[in-house]
Amino acid sequence: MPKAGHLHVILVRTRNPLNIGAVARAMSNFGFNSLRLVNPYTEAFREARSAVGAAQLLKDAREFKSVADAVADCSLVVGTTALRNRKLPHALKSPAAAAPLIRKRLASQDVAILFGSEKTGLSADDLSHCHWSVRIPTVGNISMNLGQAVAVCLYEIVRDRKSAPREKIDYATTAQLERVAAIFFELLRESGYVKPKTEPMSERKLRDLLRRLQISEDDAQQLQGMLRQIAWKIGAAGDRA
Amino acid sequence: MPKAGHLHVILVRTRNPLNIGAVARAMSNFGFNSLRLVNPYTEAFREARSAVGAAQLLKDAREFKSVADAVADCSLVVGTTALRNRKLPHALKSPAAAAPLIRKRLASQDVAILFGSEKTGLSADDLSHCHWSVRIPTVGNISMNLGQAVAVCLYEIVRDRKSAPREKIDYATTAQLERVAAIFFELLRESGYVKPKTEPMSERKLRDLLRRLQISEDDAQQLQGMLRQIAWKIGAAGDRA
Repeated sequence: MPKAGHLHVILVRTRNPLNIGAVARAMSNFGFNSLRLVNPYTEAFREARSAVGAAQLLKDAREFKSVADAVADCSLVVGTTALRNRKLPHALKSPAAAAPLIRKRLASQDVAILFGSEKTGLSADDLSHCHWSVRIPTVGNISMNLGQAVAVCLYEIVRDRKSAPREKIDYATTAQLERVAAIFFELLRESGYVKPKTEPMSERKLRDLLRRLQISEDDAQQLQGMLRQIAWKIGAAGDRA
Repeated sequence: MPKAGHLHVILVRTRNPLNIGAVARAMSNFGFNSLRLVNPYTEAFREARSAVGAAQLLKDAREFKSVADAVADCSLVVGTTALRNRKLPHALKSPAAAAPLIRKRLASQDVAILFGSEKTGLSADDLSHCHWSVRIPTVGNISMNLGQAVAVCLYEIVRDRKSAPREKIDYATTAQLERVAAIFFELLRESGYVKPKTEPMSERKLRDLLRRLQISEDDAQQLQGMLRQIAWKIGAAGDRA
C-alpha cells in the first residue's frame, strides 16, 4: 500500500513576518507541518522564525528560489485566488469542492497549496504551475488576510477527515510534467509553432495545458516516449536537411 | 414573513487591537457587519478603529459592559471554545453541525457568536449565556488565532450559500478527440514510434490515453494545432529527404 502524502503549504513572496507566523500557527492547529517559502522577504522570514506557537514548524520551513522547485515533488498543485473575475488558465473551485479532491490525492501522493503575496496574489506564471485554483467565497472588494485564508482552506481539508476514499491513480509529479513539457516545447519550437518573440508566454500556455490534462505517472512516461521519438525524427530530419 | 435576523460577532475582553481589526476584516469578507465588544481594553479598541479594510464596520461596532447586555436581543447565543476537555455546561458542536442551526435561526431572528479573550477564552460565566458551544476541530495544544477562529466560523456559516463557482468546462467531443488522435497517430507512425505489426494495438492505446486526459474542447483545439504544425515539419522534412 502506498504511504500517505504530505500537504505542503507554499507561500510565494510573502512580505509580512506576522503573516508567516500566523500561517504556521494555523497549520499546526490543523495538523499540517510542511511549510515552504518561495522568495520570501528575507527579513520577514527571519522575524517570523521567532513567532510564538509554531516554532518547530517554522524552523523546518524550507526556502525555494522558484515555484517550480517548491512543487517539484507534488502531483497536485492548487492555486488560491481572491478575485472573482480574474482570468484563470484552469478550473476554479470552492474550498468545499476542492477539499475531497485534495484529501483523496493525499492518501498516496504529495499536494501543494499555493498562496500569493499579500499585495498581488499569485502571478500568471505562478498559476501556470497549478492544476486548478480555489476561491474562498467572500463578498466585497477587500481580500482576505493571508493567515485567515490559509486557516479556512486547511479547516476545509480536515473538516470531513474520516471519509476520504483512496484514489488509485498515481498522478505525475511536477518534475515529470516538466520533463514532458520540455520535450513538447522543444518540438513546438523546432516546428515553428512557437515564435521566438512569444516564447515565454507559449511556454506558460503549454504548462497550463499539461496541468489541465491531469496526467498519470504512466501516461506521462508514455507521452514522454512518444514525444522523444518524434523529436528524434525531427532532429534527424534536421540533420539531414 | 419575518425579516431576516442579524448575526452579531461578540468579542469578550479582547486585548489585541490587531485581533479586533482582523476580526472586522473577516466579518466584512463574509458579509457580516455587526461587531459587538464586551469590555475590550480601551486602548485596543481605539487602535483597532484605525485598522485597514473594515473601517465602517469598526466605526459601527458597539461596546457593552456585560455579555448579558450584548446578547439581550438574540434568540440564539453560541459560545466558542478551544479546549477539548473543558467542562461545558451545554452541548459542544462542530462548526459543520452548528452552521445549519445558525442559518436556520437567522432566517427570522438575531444570533450571537461569542469569542473569548486571547488568553483565557470565555469564562464559565460568559458560557452561562450560551445555548451551546462550537469547537473548531484543531489538534495539539496551541489555541487558534482569534481572527482565524472567527474566519473559520463565519466561513462555515456562508459555506453552503450556493454561490460556489460553477465549473464550466466543455469537454471535447469524441469527434474532436478522434481528430487529435488521428494527427498524433500519424506522427507516431511517421517517427517510427509505432511499428506496422502492432498498429491496431498502438492506436487503441493512444485512444485510451487521450480519454484518460479529460481534454476540454479548447485544449483539444490547441493540441490539434500544435500536433499539425509538428506533422507539417516532419512531412516537409520527409519530402526533402
